[in-house]
Amino acid sequence: MNAPLHADWRPVITPRPMPVEMLQALQARFGARCSTAQAVREQHGRDESTYDAPPPDAVVYCESNEDVMAAVKLADQYAVPVIPFGVGSSLEGHLLAVQGGLSLDLSRMNRILRLNPEDLTVTVQAGVTRMQLNNEIRHTGLFFPIDPGADASLGGMAATRASGTNAVRYGTMRENVLGLGVVNAQGEWVRTGTRARKSSAGYDLTRLFVGSEGTLGVMTEITLKLYPLPEAVSAAICHFPSIDAAVQTTIAVIQMGVPIARCELIDGNTVGMVNRHSKLTLREQPMLLMEFHGTAASVAEQAQTVQEIAADHGGESFEWASTPEERTRLWTARHHAYFAAIQSRPGCRAMSTDACVPISRLAELIAESVADVDASGLPYFLVGHVGDGNFHFGYLIDPAQPAERELAEALNHRLVERTLRMEGTCSGEHGVGLHKMGFLLDEAGPAAVGLMREIKRALDPKNILNPGKVFAN
Amino acid sequence: MNAPLHADWRPVITPRPMPVEMLQALQARFGARCSTAQAVREQHGRDESTYDAPPPDAVVYCESNEDVMAAVKLADQYAVPVIPFGVGSSLEGHLLAVQGGLSLDLSRMNRILRLNPEDLTVTVQAGVTRMQLNNEIRHTGLFFPIDPGADASLGGMAATRASGTNAVRYGTMRENVLGLGVVNAQGEWVRTGTRARKSSAGYDLTRLFVGSEGTLGVMTEITLKLYPLPEAVSAAICHFPSIDAAVQTTIAVIQMGVPIARCELIDGNTVGMVNRHSKLTLREQPMLLMEFHGTAASVAEQAQTVQEIAADHGGESFEWASTPEERTRLWTARHHAYFAAIQSRPGCRAMSTDACVPISRLAELIAESVADVDASGLPYFLVGHVGDGNFHFGYLIDPAQPAERELAEALNHRLVERTLRMEGTCSGEHGVGLHKMGFLLDEAGPAAVGLMREIKRALDPKNILNPGKVFAN
Repeated sequence: MNAPLHADWRPVITPRPMPVEMLQALQARFGARCSTAQAVREQHGRDESTYDAPPPDAVVYCESNEDVMAAVKLADQYAVPVIPFGVGSSLEGHLLAVQGGLSLDLSRMNRILRLNPEDLTVTVQAGVTRMQLNNEIRHTGLFFPIDPGADASLGGMAATRASGTNAVRYGTMRENVLGLGVVNAQGEWVRTGTRARKSSAGYDLTRLFVGSEGTLGVMTEITLKLYPLPEAVSAAICHFPSIDAAVQTTIAVIQMGVPIARCELIDGNTVGMVNRHSKLTLREQPMLLMEFHGTAASVAEQAQTVQEIAADHGGESFEWASTPEERTRLWTARHHAYFAAIQSRPGCRAMSTDACVPISRLAELIAESVADVDASGLPYFLVGHVGDGNFHFGYLIDPAQPAERELAEALNHRLVERTLRMEGTCSGEHGVGLHKMGFLLDEAGPAAVGLMREIKRALDPKNILNPGKVFAN
Repeated sequence: MNAPLHADWRPVITPRPMPVEMLQALQARFGARCSTAQAVREQHGRDESTYDAPPPDAVVYCESNEDVMAAVKLADQYAVPVIPFGVGSSLEGHLLAVQGGLSLDLSRMNRILRLNPEDLTVTVQAGVTRMQLNNEIRHTGLFFPIDPGADASLGGMAATRASGTNAVRYGTMRENVLGLGVVNAQGEWVRTGTRARKSSAGYDLTRLFVGSEGTLGVMTEITLKLYPLPEAVSAAICHFPSIDAAVQTTIAVIQMGVPIARCELIDGNTVGMVNRHSKLTLREQPMLLMEFHGTAASVAEQAQTVQEIAADHGGESFEWASTPEERTRLWTARHHAYFAAIQSRPGCRAMSTDACVPISRLAELIAESVADVDASGLPYFLVGHVGDGNFHFGYLIDPAQPAERELAEALNHRLVERTLRMEGTCSGEHGVGLHKMGFLLDEAGPAAVGLMREIKRALDPKNILNPGKVFAN
């Protein structure tokens, strides 16, 4: 990190009004599927971030690749922004129409196009959500593991390079997207990748689009890797005397190469919120929520190893959940941590951090950052995909109080500063969006961001694809 | 596949002569480390492909990032091609100076820069070879798994998105490079990625450079994932009555989710070559060479499962190798298959194919392609990383007989045709180089190749970085 950390997190609103001719052309092409109703526009102009911006000028509900191509061609013709919209669960302001324009709602593109269980692959439309996918393929004995918590659309997950609770075992969207169907900035259809598991044929366009946050193309079809449902699954909770003890346990598990499938940290404060929200009676101490996948023998062996490591760090009272119902109860509690926290302070919004560091630095980073937020007095939740070195604070701010937002920004700022000093990344899985553009510059440096901008200019010369995200114009 | 398959495999030689001023500037900067000696130039103007081209105009031995930056800045100034050179083991003509220019020999950049065993990462200079790396980190109890056969440089392996025998378990260079230090086309230093295991911060420049075959930048530093040496390793040979039986066994193993670490097919004909070369007495039947990694119990369980599957397909006489010495003997034989084949026909050169298909199509593809080459009468070897759906014919041609080259090209042409029909890729791991530019167009289509070209033009406007590879000009 050479430059001082940037703090240009406030959305810059620079509307590029949609010409009436374009709106008329959209209405002619899409009829009632093109909406300018205030409520529809507002619903498509916000997400789970803490930011506000004026809504998009119009919303088009796409039902086919041809719909997306037609809409993007018009946006290209009139040089108007296009923002792809899945379910609206972005945490970083990806969906905000900071330059106005057209929201492309892909939620009706929710068909599974091709299921090839014999190859462990599936091709879906971008609007399919991860839970829908897993429901629809259950009969095959396969599953798609990536689980960011929210029931996000797979298009949104690919666009943000999402990961979540079991990336520690199965990787992220980066590792699990085999190929894409993308509409480029000129409204043309491009296919990337094949159904082969690996390839050295040309530039890795698939990985370039994955994580590009809608700024290089509109993904409409996604080919994904699937995995056999494990023969045995076992989940466990273990309580620790301190966050440090839980994290040190995690570090040892990873360094030993135990193929743990999930390893989630929840701090005592957040366990309390979860208890109150989900009517549970978990001990309000730091805990790890773990899952093991494999054959029955392998799962038993992994669990034994992890129990021994945990005991060395003061972990106690392993509670096992081996039936699907018990596991669901545990993971539901984990997934509800976000909403439990939000409800713990009525009217608040959560500003989420997303640091990810090399595993050996994780304990130090968390300790310093917990001390910092505790000293500030701001309420927060803390959960972490600690097996990957990734964790989230949610600073629970009252949006009516600018001082709280400033405080949260300052906390996040110092957290990112520590993260970069430890050779980590400002975003493990949420993306840059509006909020981390300055941090991206600090992390990657002007030369790398310069390359990204050159790619953006080459592929989207009119800057119509989700402009104002990833880098400020 | 919409268009007919292209067959523009012949190198197009379009020299861009190096101005004498540039050569003088190189000599002033590099002294004796800049060579124009015929023998040195010729050594740097060929690789393991079957192609020939005039040698580069000069060779510079780089010892630092600053050396690479200085050389590329001069190349940029004079608009002269630059070709990075590791150990010369490319199979696709990547190193041939089809447009003249400067070969940048990186083999002296062979230091391990940072070893972080506690994070399972290492940063190396691009000239470090995979065997050197594993020798130098052995004391940590970690290893780097990617094994393409040749003792390639890690820069070359990243440039071609290499994989090899144990990608089925550990992934390819795509999954195992965390970050890069790259000199761009303007001679500037760019760092991509961090040491964090995952990131959603900006475009995935790391994955864009990995597999770009020296056409977007010169990689000089590579940060890699490492893995704990497995507690137990066991290798086995199993003989099958037919190639089909061996491949069907592989398909079942993958579909069941057995975490096999290596699964290599060798056909009976190639086993014979290996026997004669390595003085072995293996049964000259199709065989699978397998390896299992894990805890002792897990390895035993995997082996048991695979033995049962193999028996169902007529596999017999499992031979186990559990000591390191026995395993080394087996894998040495596998790695020597290429040279065993070359020596089986004095004076020949091997034209290597590199098809990779979804696993369910593998048996059909191999069967049709074996029948095709058998009917042709051309000698060949056949080995495969079949767990990934990837295999190689090496057509053993006499370079003095144009008809044999034509025949081999026709066989490869039909093989790629079948591969694309089965939704596979023309290159699983060798790259495009000079030989697969037409196939890339068939596989990816003009729209996707158009995007690749736009990226190339944006990042390398003077077309100095390994020009004439991946796409013609």
